[in-house]
Amino acid sequence: MTNSATAKQSSYKVIGTRPIRHDGVDKVTGRAQYGADINLPGMLHGKVLRSPHPHAKIKSIDTSKAESHPNVRAVATSNDLPIPCPVGRGNVFPLGVSDNIFARGKVLYKGHAVAAVAATSALAAEEALSLIKVEYEPMPWVTDAEEAIEPGAPVLHEHWTTDDPSGQVLADTNIASHEQHAFGDLVKGFGEADLILEREYKSSSVHQGYIEPQNATASWSPDGRVTIWCSSQGHFYIQMQTAQILGLPVSRIRIVPMEIGGGFGGKLSAYLEPVAAVLSKKSGNPVKMTMSRPEVFESTGPTCGSKVSVKIGVTKEGRITAAKAVYFFEAGAFPGAPLSAAAAAIFAPYNIENMQVDAYDVVDNKPKTAAYRAPGAPNVIWAVENLMDEIAEHLSIEPMQLRLLNVAIEGTRRSDGVKNLLIGAKEVMETVVAHSHYKAPLEGKNKGRGVSMGFCRNNTGPACVVANVFNDGTVSLLEGSVDIGGSRSAIAQQLAEVLGIPVEDVHPSIGDTDEIGFTSPTGGSSVAYKSGIAAYEAALDVCEQLTKRAAILWEVDEGEVEYVDGLVRHKSDPELSLTFKEMAAKMPETGGPVVGTANVNPTRSGASYSAHLVDVEVDPETGKVDILRFTAFQDVGKAIHPSYVEGQIQGGSSQGIGWALNEEYYMGLDGKMANFTLLDYRMPTALDVPMIEPVIVEVPNPGHPFGVRGAGEANIAPALAAIANAINKATGVRLRNLPMSPAVVLKAIQDKNGIVS
Amino acid sequence: MTNSATAKQSSYKVIGTRPIRHDGVDKVTGRAQYGADINLPGMLHGKVLRSPHPHAKIKSIDTSKAESHPNVRAVATSNDLPIPCPVGRGNVFPLGVSDNIFARGKVLYKGHAVAAVAATSALAAEEALSLIKVEYEPMPWVTDAEEAIEPGAPVLHEHWTTDDPSGQVLADTNIASHEQHAFGDLVKGFGEADLILEREYKSSSVHQGYIEPQNATASWSPDGRVTIWCSSQGHFYIQMQTAQILGLPVSRIRIVPMEIGGGFGGKLSAYLEPVAAVLSKKSGNPVKMTMSRPEVFESTGPTCGSKVSVKIGVTKEGRITAAKAVYFFEAGAFPGAPLSAAAAAIFAPYNIENMQVDAYDVVDNKPKTAAYRAPGAPNVIWAVENLMDEIAEHLSIEPMQLRLLNVAIEGTRRSDGVKNLLIGAKEVMETVVAHSHYKAPLEGKNKGRGVSMGFCRNNTGPACVVANVFNDGTVSLLEGSVDIGGSRSAIAQQLAEVLGIPVEDVHPSIGDTDEIGFTSPTGGSSVAYKSGIAAYEAALDVCEQLTKRAAILWEVDEGEVEYVDGLVRHKSDPELSLTFKEMAAKMPETGGPVVGTANVNPTRSGASYSAHLVDVEVDPETGKVDILRFTAFQDVGKAIHPSYVEGQIQGGSSQGIGWALNEEYYMGLDGKMANFTLLDYRMPTALDVPMIEPVIVEVPNPGHPFGVRGAGEANIAPALAAIANAINKATGVRLRNLPMSPAVVLKAIQDKNGIVS
Repeated sequence: MTNSATAKQSSYKVIGTRPIRHDGVDKVTGRAQYGADINLPGMLHGKVLRSPHPHAKIKSIDTSKAESHPNVRAVATSNDLPIPCPVGRGNVFPLGVSDNIFARGKVLYKGHAVAAVAATSALAAEEALSLIKVEYEPMPWVTDAEEAIEPGAPVLHEHWTTDDPSGQVLADTNIASHEQHAFGDLVKGFGEADLILEREYKSSSVHQGYIEPQNATASWSPDGRVTIWCSSQGHFYIQMQTAQILGLPVSRIRIVPMEIGGGFGGKLSAYLEPVAAVLSKKSGNPVKMTMSRPEVFESTGPTCGSKVSVKIGVTKEGRITAAKAVYFFEAGAFPGAPLSAAAAAIFAPYNIENMQVDAYDVVDNKPKTAAYRAPGAPNVIWAVENLMDEIAEHLSIEPMQLRLLNVAIEGTRRSDGVKNLLIGAKEVMETVVAHSHYKAPLEGKNKGRGVSMGFCRNNTGPACVVANVFNDGTVSLLEGSVDIGGSRSAIAQQLAEVLGIPVEDVHPSIGDTDEIGFTSPTGGSSVAYKSGIAAYEAALDVCEQLTKRAAILWEVDEGEVEYVDGLVRHKSDPELSLTFKEMAAKMPETGGPVVGTANVNPTRSGASYSAHLVDVEVDPETGKVDILRFTAFQDVGKAIHPSYVEGQIQGGSSQGIGWALNEEYYMGLDGKMANFTLLDYRMPTALDVPMIEPVIVEVPNPGHPFGVRGAGEANIAPALAAIANAINKATGVRLRNLPMSPAVVLKAIQDKNGIVS
Repeated sequence: MTNSATAKQSSYKVIGTRPIRHDGVDKVTGRAQYGADINLPGMLHGKVLRSPHPHAKIKSIDTSKAESHPNVRAVATSNDLPIPCPVGRGNVFPLGVSDNIFARGKVLYKGHAVAAVAATSALAAEEALSLIKVEYEPMPWVTDAEEAIEPGAPVLHEHWTTDDPSGQVLADTNIASHEQHAFGDLVKGFGEADLILEREYKSSSVHQGYIEPQNATASWSPDGRVTIWCSSQGHFYIQMQTAQILGLPVSRIRIVPMEIGGGFGGKLSAYLEPVAAVLSKKSGNPVKMTMSRPEVFESTGPTCGSKVSVKIGVTKEGRITAAKAVYFFEAGAFPGAPLSAAAAAIFAPYNIENMQVDAYDVVDNKPKTAAYRAPGAPNVIWAVENLMDEIAEHLSIEPMQLRLLNVAIEGTRRSDGVKNLLIGAKEVMETVVAHSHYKAPLEGKNKGRGVSMGFCRNNTGPACVVANVFNDGTVSLLEGSVDIGGSRSAIAQQLAEVLGIPVEDVHPSIGDTDEIGFTSPTGGSSVAYKSGIAAYEAALDVCEQLTKRAAILWEVDEGEVEYVDGLVRHKSDPELSLTFKEMAAKMPETGGPVVGTANVNPTRSGASYSAHLVDVEVDPETGKVDILRFTAFQDVGKAIHPSYVEGQIQGGSSQGIGWALNEEYYMGLDGKMANFTLLDYRMPTALDVPMIEPVIVEVPNPGHPFGVRGAGEANIAPALAAIANAINKATGVRLRNLPMSPAVVLKAIQDKNGIVS
């Protein structure tokens, strides 16, 4: 498929163009309906009572006063959820945990939900929350992965045990799991090295920072079916989790996907959906709930903080002989940190024959973490790419030459042991080196240039589309993939390319869980890949049907008709030829509606490599880092809609800049997040970020008809080390803790200069 | 297919059972969303200014004062609609006429829309209507078909001409079209007759009387696409009409079908949809409109009033030798009375070799008529069945014996010339004769028993369904057919039967025009037939996919696996067998989602015959007719859900009773309807109608896998003549004008007795 796709690239008519997105006008004019825009007759408003303690036993909950509030219609606690199956570390549902919806027996973090109220107004609901009396017995707490695994640390889940790869059974610990990947001979590898460096790197919890808070509106029908309107990255995932938490078959829950104001991994988990459902069931009315910004920060998943140790051995020529990594990921109150995804990413750009990776999932008294753009990858890539820069310095090798010397290619083994398919690591490195930014001089004091590679393995999953042909020659395209970043257009373009029609003649929409077949979530950079394949297959289905229709119309054998470039034509009679529009108009007389469908479960999503090249200037008096120039490279396989791919690259880079320089969960001495507003939690604004120049690299994925790999995630990872490496060049200090905020940078400069502040 | 279907009947597990309808709970608890339940942010309210004159030139419309009303956001008139293609009688769109949406140049009936206003409240919109100044020049009018074709009658559409079958071109007339059906030799046929009777029968306009008034909410996006929420019998039809009226491609209009509170043929036409769309375009806001009851009566389609002359010749033994009919149907202000459907119905129960039918479509100054349950059939069947009773009396033949003697069977010709397929006319007649009601004595003064046959040819059209299999073994069924009378269940049952699963495991819903392929409207008793076939085909598609999946799972050849009675099983290895639920749970590991689809355009809907048997008692002092006993027979082919079929039979019978005894557009001397409220327009209430005993006859339709014919319409037609014939037996008077209201009955009795009142 590679060859034909590659050969065909130049002749694409729709793929690679930049049409206006189908949902654009609705979104800029405010017509698009987001979760909070839903209003139903008789609708109540729900609010959640949350724990003020980072760790405490719940001795009692008295909801009687709240229940007798004149405007209250329902109160719910964990008593309203079925008791989950016996929970061990192995069988916890990775996303939706019943005890995270309502604390059962004890609270595990500040913000942990304890009870909820539905009332006739949001104000009345809030008022009623204060009438709920909860008796707590505070317990010692821990909010840092490193401290959490120390002997004597407060243990969150006392009754759990963990099977360690060593054969040991870990008990009475906050280590939820230990995953190991190893191949080659580490002793031999390090033995061949001329230089071995080992360093430790840390990063704090950061939040996905989507603009739209979590929301859910539920309407429970007396027939036992519940409809939930909410914004999420995957309504079928929310359906699965809500079903599990409520103890219902999935088909009893209908999720209507509303538009989503950002997710970045944080909207794969159910939070309010089961609560709104229970309150609706108890009250008999629809119930709407939305979170405040503090609730989003304190009660929904940030990504994990981490401690990563990396040891790399190299020959004096720069060849890596062995690599070892140990990392501890902070899972928050319940397990589920992205150990495997990080293991795939950690040494992904390089071909290393001897390797071992040990990964630990650690629980602590913070909100349960959630996925965040290339989950786990930035935490570990930041470490390795920081160390690679240090190695280059030690060996006096140009940093990109060191990387190119060790580059992973098709057939070499990734850090998780998987053999690489056709990948673009080398092409990305070569594009960096050839770019004008890389060659441009950088003059002046306190300035530095840094570079880092990045990676995301990219996921896939089942996807369904239905393509209905209208009599006017347009097509309505019903998809199962929630659209976050313009995927309506990217999917429609793939359909239009096959049909040979303008993409403006395709009208995409997202079906709810009753309307379209199971489609895995919009995550893992998977949508343009998997739903693209579904659109491609559905278009072929339409072509086949139209070919049959033409045969009926012309009274010829089906085999004599072909579909080429938007034309149904007879293979040998040039008189017999009809456009797609003309064929569509003839549907009624040739057998009725033409509807193409495809339900796919493709498995060959292609990994994506990326790189950031960044120039910084550091103010030596304040420690503030200004980004002067930023170029972001990414192999996306094939950019279906280059503007949205560029947008992904720019967005991911901005988030990487925020993670590198400012963002962190600032945990107070009381075990509570101190900066739970967008004023104090410092995400980059337009003033903080320069124009980010996106550079698209296209090494087609042989597992997709047009070569798509996925564009959403690989772009966040490189920023952290690229900026650290640039700061090093500007100041001579090498930073190994994130964020590199002004105070941290200033202190490092002062330490280096022997200044005691 | 007949034989297998017939043979299989006894073994059906789901077909023929009576499950609770899927939308039942939502409907009885008020959760179901009807057209008026939609509320959108920034929504305005629209109202229509209507003509106070039955016929008048519009000299000018001044909307300036309304436009300057502080709460008004938009005003619209015919100037806001594109000028329709040159309108001749031939090329008028049969349902949606632009000039019926807004009068252009002149008003043609009282209630004809002239202008519309959108304002921030419904009250403000109404207030603003009074600020629109319309200068009218009243013209002579005519509101009766008979008067409308008299020489010198006011002509509604002066510039039209009509091609008559005679070859003449009719001009300056209100006859919009003349249709003729003839076969055999009429002169010879009447020559062979021993008795020839010729009579004239009239009926007044009656309204469909749905409870929910017309409604539409439109939101016009600046990208030129408009979404319209409305209740209708066919959202794809509303889309087509709105597109035509607004001069847009169909794909620019998305219609979201809301639940429908009755239609009976009256909700196939667009009324408010284009108006709301124009007001939304002009104001930039969503606009909601709903009609009041007077607007429904005065501005939406009633069915046509009619004048029908019938002439029948019979031998003294009762054999019909020839029949001739001439009928004039009142179309209202624009053409489109159901001439052909009436031609199919008029002599349908009988085998007549010499026949001629002349049908005229006549316009007059009343609202444009719309379809009403078996359109045209009651108007003509009432005449023929009344006359058949009179012939039986003349010949002293038992009325049902006369009918059986002449009964139409497979292969004989229908009155419109079509050869009958397998039909159940004889079976219905035989069931009547065998019924205990037919044999029961009817004793006492002023009582009488009447019988009449009925008929509907039943329609069909394209239909689409999509069946998504959930992992929990349930199926979501997306349909294109709007559900009025329980078709969600009837379609789901056909799917469930093929899959061998409980119908409760199927969750049906209706897709909007972007979500599902073109599906013709819920009319013509077509849904259980056409969407049933689609569900049947989609289920077979699912079975085929599951069979393939099992082959993957068992690593055997596809040909070795079969799907039987809800089991996927190996043909020879009894160990290999999985239920539907088990296979569904294995979808993820065998290739992802299973989605079955079907897009069909079946053509062999079967005609349906019916009969009513009615006992009445007539009060000789008031003329009031009481229905004592009512038995309704109908051949439905196969009753998928007998309860809803019985409901259809009872509902149609009730409407027939209303039409027979009370309902009529009472036109005042001023050319205006005098009884435009439900208090004055007398529909039957529960007090007026006895228990109607439905008797289902099943002569399977060979054109449907389960034998379905369609159940919605044939049940209205017989009531009119059956009651007239019963009144004749009770009083000795024979009534030939509808309705047979107390005053009319009393006058006929008095006339017969020589009493001058």
